[in-house]
Amino acid sequence: MTGRDGGAELEPIEPSPVVILVRPQLAENIGSVARAMGNGGLFHLRIVAPRDGWPQERAWRTGAGAHRILDSAVVFDSVAAAVGDLHRVFATCPRPRHIIKPVLTARGGAAEVVAIGQRGLRCGVLFGPERAGLDNDDIACADSLIRYDLNPGFMSLNLAQAVMVFGYEWWLARQDEQPMRELQTNETVPATKADLDHFMAHLIRECDDSGFLKNEQKRPGMIRNLRHFFNRGEITRQELNTLHGVVSELVRGRKLRPR
Amino acid sequence: MTGRDGGAELEPIEPSPVVILVRPQLAENIGSVARAMGNGGLFHLRIVAPRDGWPQERAWRTGAGAHRILDSAVVFDSVAAAVGDLHRVFATCPRPRHIIKPVLTARGGAAEVVAIGQRGLRCGVLFGPERAGLDNDDIACADSLIRYDLNPGFMSLNLAQAVMVFGYEWWLARQDEQPMRELQTNETVPATKADLDHFMAHLIRECDDSGFLKNEQKRPGMIRNLRHFFNRGEITRQELNTLHGVVSELVRGRKLRPR
Repeated sequence: MTGRDGGAELEPIEPSPVVILVRPQLAENIGSVARAMGNGGLFHLRIVAPRDGWPQERAWRTGAGAHRILDSAVVFDSVAAAVGDLHRVFATCPRPRHIIKPVLTARGGAAEVVAIGQRGLRCGVLFGPERAGLDNDDIACADSLIRYDLNPGFMSLNLAQAVMVFGYEWWLARQDEQPMRELQTNETVPATKADLDHFMAHLIRECDDSGFLKNEQKRPGMIRNLRHFFNRGEITRQELNTLHGVVSELVRGRKLRPR
Repeated sequence: MTGRDGGAELEPIEPSPVVILVRPQLAENIGSVARAMGNGGLFHLRIVAPRDGWPQERAWRTGAGAHRILDSAVVFDSVAAAVGDLHRVFATCPRPRHIIKPVLTARGGAAEVVAIGQRGLRCGVLFGPERAGLDNDDIACADSLIRYDLNPGFMSLNLAQAVMVFGYEWWLARQDEQPMRELQTNETVPATKADLDHFMAHLIRECDDSGFLKNEQKRPGMIRNLRHFFNRGEITRQELNTLHGVVSELVRGRKLRPR
């Protein structure tokens, strides 16, 4: 699931929301966040009061090529300043208490971010510091909350993974339709049913010849089972050729032997 | 989005798929994977040929409390051994080439894993090593591929994040569980991967014996193609028995004949 590709060409896909890291502690995590943002097609990164200052070389090391995102990151003193030019702000937060605000899932939040962007408005999403999460003052800067639907028995979510899940949902939300199942085409040529039939005939002929299908009563059922099996999923021409070869070679001994 | 809660009580939520890390390099990443698994409610972890051996204390350090998952992890020498007792195997893989297998999105794959689990069958999901990803021989052990729908311009996906996205989708898919989509009809028993391997060994032995695989250079690729083919979709024990019979009968002539 890896490979360093395309980091150099990362560019904003507009309208794309701003990821706002609030008081992040570890520069390594900021780099991992940038990588996750790249995966999800996000680009705009803002950092509020990073504990160890900014820039930090360590971030570029864990960024796995998402340099442009880190190069373009902007630092702010406060959440209020960081969200100043935005129209809508979401706060990710596992357990909102004493707060009444709309609470969305990651999927619902991403859909709303996309819808808002389509209206020409700018969105931001707040992610809290590694240990403590967002505090009440941070959350007060947000319009809505995003609470991830995950195992309530183990909510300890890594910062970059929180950004990953949001970016993943945002990437999907941008697409109108999501194909559930596609087939590879590439250079491989899928076999037609006639190609398959040709192989089945070959196989059955040899099975008959070898005596495997000699029980007349069981023969139709056995052939049906074989056909079921070889009809499961798509076969390529190449694979059929291999199977032809297997059958031909396996029986070669018998053919050489006078019966 | 953080806070250490509940790690000690992590328990399997059955039926839950097995996460299989193939030749992972960094123990830190294995720990981060365990943490992500806990977030998504996954529990069963298998590790194939970890580069630095196992156990490694560093994994427990990055596991953020997901100790039970790491404590229960099982190490295997090969992918084939790691999937032996499973009925269906999925391989996560960004860019499948020259392979025709069903390709699912993370969402589609998770839905299928849930549906298969409801039928009482065991699933596993393969995740490749950090840099190179799964190789063709690994993928040949899988029935279907899972390709994440993410920014094609930046596919460098961290191992723990790959597991995170799958776990997140699995957690969501469990919630819109449909009543069983297919029922096991009649007395067909799905074969495990070990059953299939047993057949593959039989087939390869006979192919070797007959000279079909005598070209040493082509042999690995030909075997991989055969494995790909027989790993496409579900096979029943009965079908495997039939296939064993076919191979045995086809070669009978040669066996009778002194070489």
